[in-house]
Amino acid sequence: MSNTDKQNRMAHAIRFLAADAIEKAKSGHPGLPMGAADIATVLFTKFMKFDPTCPSWADRDRFVLSAGHGSMLQYALLHLLGYEDMTIEDIANFRQVGAKTAGHPEFGHASGIETTTGPLGQGIGNAVGMAIAEKLLATKYGADIVDHYTYVVAGDGCLMEGISQEAITLAGHLKLNKMIVLWDDNNITIDGTVSVSDSTDQLARFKASGWNTDSVNGHDQEAIAAAIEAAQKSDKPTLIACKTTIGFGAPNKAGTSGIHGAPLGTEELAGTRKALGWENEPFDIPADIRDAWRIAGLNAAHSRKDWQKRLDALDAEVKADFERRMRGDLPSGLDEALDAYKKELAAEPKTVATRKASEMALTVINEAINETIGGSADLTGSNNTKTKDTAPVTPDDFSGRYINWGIREHGMAAAMNGMALHGGVIPYSGTFLVFADYMRGAMRLSALMEQRVIYVLTHDSIGLGEDGPTHQPVETLASLRAIPNMLVFRPADVTETAECWDLALKAEKSPSALSLTRQNLVPVRTEYVSENLCARGAYVLSDTDADADVSLFASGSEIEIAMEAQKALAAKDIKARVISVPCFELFEAQSREYQKEVLGNAKVNVGIEAAIRMGWDRFIGTDGIFVGMSSFGASGPYKALYEKFGITADAIVSQVEAELSQAEAAE
Amino acid sequence: MSNTDKQNRMAHAIRFLAADAIEKAKSGHPGLPMGAADIATVLFTKFMKFDPTCPSWADRDRFVLSAGHGSMLQYALLHLLGYEDMTIEDIANFRQVGAKTAGHPEFGHASGIETTTGPLGQGIGNAVGMAIAEKLLATKYGADIVDHYTYVVAGDGCLMEGISQEAITLAGHLKLNKMIVLWDDNNITIDGTVSVSDSTDQLARFKASGWNTDSVNGHDQEAIAAAIEAAQKSDKPTLIACKTTIGFGAPNKAGTSGIHGAPLGTEELAGTRKALGWENEPFDIPADIRDAWRIAGLNAAHSRKDWQKRLDALDAEVKADFERRMRGDLPSGLDEALDAYKKELAAEPKTVATRKASEMALTVINEAINETIGGSADLTGSNNTKTKDTAPVTPDDFSGRYINWGIREHGMAAAMNGMALHGGVIPYSGTFLVFADYMRGAMRLSALMEQRVIYVLTHDSIGLGEDGPTHQPVETLASLRAIPNMLVFRPADVTETAECWDLALKAEKSPSALSLTRQNLVPVRTEYVSENLCARGAYVLSDTDADADVSLFASGSEIEIAMEAQKALAAKDIKARVISVPCFELFEAQSREYQKEVLGNAKVNVGIEAAIRMGWDRFIGTDGIFVGMSSFGASGPYKALYEKFGITADAIVSQVEAELSQAEAAE
Repeated sequence: MSNTDKQNRMAHAIRFLAADAIEKAKSGHPGLPMGAADIATVLFTKFMKFDPTCPSWADRDRFVLSAGHGSMLQYALLHLLGYEDMTIEDIANFRQVGAKTAGHPEFGHASGIETTTGPLGQGIGNAVGMAIAEKLLATKYGADIVDHYTYVVAGDGCLMEGISQEAITLAGHLKLNKMIVLWDDNNITIDGTVSVSDSTDQLARFKASGWNTDSVNGHDQEAIAAAIEAAQKSDKPTLIACKTTIGFGAPNKAGTSGIHGAPLGTEELAGTRKALGWENEPFDIPADIRDAWRIAGLNAAHSRKDWQKRLDALDAEVKADFERRMRGDLPSGLDEALDAYKKELAAEPKTVATRKASEMALTVINEAINETIGGSADLTGSNNTKTKDTAPVTPDDFSGRYINWGIREHGMAAAMNGMALHGGVIPYSGTFLVFADYMRGAMRLSALMEQRVIYVLTHDSIGLGEDGPTHQPVETLASLRAIPNMLVFRPADVTETAECWDLALKAEKSPSALSLTRQNLVPVRTEYVSENLCARGAYVLSDTDADADVSLFASGSEIEIAMEAQKALAAKDIKARVISVPCFELFEAQSREYQKEVLGNAKVNVGIEAAIRMGWDRFIGTDGIFVGMSSFGASGPYKALYEKFGITADAIVSQVEAELSQAEAAE
Repeated sequence: MSNTDKQNRMAHAIRFLAADAIEKAKSGHPGLPMGAADIATVLFTKFMKFDPTCPSWADRDRFVLSAGHGSMLQYALLHLLGYEDMTIEDIANFRQVGAKTAGHPEFGHASGIETTTGPLGQGIGNAVGMAIAEKLLATKYGADIVDHYTYVVAGDGCLMEGISQEAITLAGHLKLNKMIVLWDDNNITIDGTVSVSDSTDQLARFKASGWNTDSVNGHDQEAIAAAIEAAQKSDKPTLIACKTTIGFGAPNKAGTSGIHGAPLGTEELAGTRKALGWENEPFDIPADIRDAWRIAGLNAAHSRKDWQKRLDALDAEVKADFERRMRGDLPSGLDEALDAYKKELAAEPKTVATRKASEMALTVINEAINETIGGSADLTGSNNTKTKDTAPVTPDDFSGRYINWGIREHGMAAAMNGMALHGGVIPYSGTFLVFADYMRGAMRLSALMEQRVIYVLTHDSIGLGEDGPTHQPVETLASLRAIPNMLVFRPADVTETAECWDLALKAEKSPSALSLTRQNLVPVRTEYVSENLCARGAYVLSDTDADADVSLFASGSEIEIAMEAQKALAAKDIKARVISVPCFELFEAQSREYQKEVLGNAKVNVGIEAAIRMGWDRFIGTDGIFVGMSSFGASGPYKALYEKFGITADAIVSQVEAELSQAEAAE
């Protein structure tokens, strides 16, 4: 058997593992694994650097299957290459409850899956972040320690999604030359040929974004190999258009959208076996091909020992720092630094916007930690994400720690996911809270993948004033709180902001969204407490001496108003307690007893937040008073807007009085 | 004064109205209006077709300020051109509460504002939709009646946003030759020069997408005019890169990011007056310039009378149909058709997925109405949005009524907004519910602008099965219900689906999101009722004879489970009523009495929805039982997933029993 023959049959092994697993599951997408099997075979047998016995090797090449519906391609590869936790049973169990082999690749289900994909275009964005992380770490620790490629297999759908434009213009601008995208250029989408909905000249488009481009026959393994070799030498990121036939090998369905997302069916599958000369039963791989793949898995790992030697030869402190960062552990100095900072704040309370408070906290953090990488989607001066001591990353200098992401929220968020997944860095970056809507597709994946990505979301209510309803979030807090595993923090002053930052950094398995004001806020935490009170999610900020008539629950900028209302109510002999609610999700994690204590049993419960009510019933009950928004906002100076929408201490007092007198009348 | 001189001074009038209004408001974005004033002057004095005395003229050219932060450009134009509802007082009242002159242009605030912009890139997407609507209507009613351009002024930010890629590839593919984008190519973003974050060759990028491109000095009015003239003749959409100086005229701040988004300040503004030779006080326009602008306003309208004659000469029925469509009124036949369809369904109840039920309803609707334009983001066969009788729109044939949007959710939604804003068409289109996240930026604007845009969102829960957590919405329903003025419908069977479609079509001032299943549902509405029960938002679907022990509130696919639970509880002598909740928002619009009646006073309230609890407390109280999701989903056959996550009749029964026995013990 010629070498080419064997390589072809290695690709067929992928094809049949995929087609057979999908047939058994009666569900899945055979088109891509069968079409891109040659690409994957070349990449994994000739180029990729990894070790199936040490999947977490820090300097491995990263592989991203951006076209995640082709998940069986990745599962087949992992199995064939000898990843122990991807057995043939796992393959046969494709798409069943509890299986590692989910419908789309899920990060954390099995080693070798570098990211969760499926929502199209996200993988390209993740890869940008991985390639950025690689350059940052290579600059810091040297190319002896960090020097790997990031490969992507993307489909037509990935390239049509707008997020891909944000990703590729970023990659081109930042000259991410070690990012190589293999485009499964099969000319088919679900609705038919690409020409049904698109006429883009993709190579020209990528060139316009500063990419190196190439085009090859995606079933000619030698041509693919030559293109990858050339790409590795480019000083730009590379797109290789690999012309493929979707569902390659299927006698009738190949080249049609009919094979994209449905099992082949018994007859077509039998026909494919015949056409490709594959005689083995489902899930049975010929011994020579199995061996060839295992050898490829061994070969891919051959440089790891040398790498380990270089790592061991590093200065002990540097090595420990690198390993700590790759583990995702925080250094020991952070707690002390933040505690000292909280003491300072208590000694000299400051009236600042929480976006400014965030910058102040970040100044402490960025000095204590060297792995935080900041940024903003072109709102640096507004998001206050850049601390003085962090220099910007530029295309030719990755020694900085701040990224000007441009006006690309979605690409930024997807790249931050990639950075966190890569490891060694903790990404945080800013935009306006309302524009969380532009990157929600990626934020959801931060939460699903349990990645520590920190979103700094300023201008968090009508409090931003004149920019008006397009820029004023009213539903955004609720919509973010709705995402499972997303920690949404809305601190009320400088101290709470520092505490929330601390919590966000320590939430190793959750992304965080910090909701911060544009407008100044009076400090409410004026006494030093060593405990991080925000860690409880909600806590009594200001209690009454005796049983409370009223509980005032509020967050962020509305705490100030709650405190005013408390005072005004006291003047009328109505006893009110104020509960600060910086984080719904952390409150839910507290004990029942603590929750009960915080919720209290006042006659009247009031929720105050310059946003919609959704979610607040948890604190105030369905019969509680809610002082907030029930419509979009308006343009005007912010104090006038608070008046207009009735979010004032006066409004609280009068509603509380009405409620109390009604209650009395009813008694 | 030479002609060129006068044209320059006409542009200065815009510059000073903008700079002075922003100075007075102490807030706003002078950079764009000052930089793009020449472009706007050329466009509005030499090309745009409109009538300030008849702003709703159906065949007017559409103008979209995609860079909405430059709102003062548009307000200045409207005022100068003689739109009566844009007075100098309105200009002077810029960014104040209640003013028409909001921070960003708000559709509905003043005539001549064709769309709400501010969130970057949306305007380009809207313009694509307007240009599509124009071609559709021109094809149907003839170029004598519909024949206008759609112009866009876009900034660097618009072009960086991913949504712009989706928009321009759509425009290029569909050959929207009457769409002309004037790019305010000033090389400045908030964070500095464009080179800080981007290196894209925009002309090459647009060319790759099938656009005609040109580049001119954006302060040379003759060159701009020549470029627009050439663009009008192109058979492709055109991008004109207009090289401008941001904040043109300001002696120190022009050409810097410092003038993008802040008032000039007294000194710089005085300097600008000096530099541009402008001696008038703020808000005072020299008489000759004022006259010149008014004459331009009159000239722009000169073709309207002839157009009216052509319209009047149409066949009476065709004319009436055109006018009805442009008003947005539905034709009379719809109610009868839907009623007949409901009778059919009652006579022969069908077990189908609600996505299929949607297609069935649409088949009736698309026959009764000729203005519905369907589509899908490359999921036609899954969303069931294409009815047999509607042909696809192709680049060379706009007689169809179905658009293959490609894998471009955000661009699709923004274009649908543009179609609705244009008038004459009712856009509906599909994707998976979870990918609402990809287009949320545009969906929010549908709601804010009160546009009848119908989102068909299928595969609406873990019920989609094997595709797994990336494709399974759990938080999406809550996040959409959070948007003010967004009607979220989740019908439970064929009949409810028909009713919800009816409501979506009749909601003239609200977008709708139809949440539909992949899996089959047993019909629960088996008797014909002429009333649209879904119009109440929630209603008692199945009552008990006597006082209920339990109220089971559910929506969509979980109604079936609630009905099963009711039966199982009855077998244990526990009386349960089932309340169908197809639309939270419409329920809130009902009378207090009706709401009380529906909520009832059972001992135990249960909410059942294969999604998160957020929002359901309204129905079940904070102490109600919720049977749904509290995490992301999983990959597997859907029935196994319902078991896994405990969303079953058995689970409901056992929780109800536990609650009832606990309540008894407490008595």
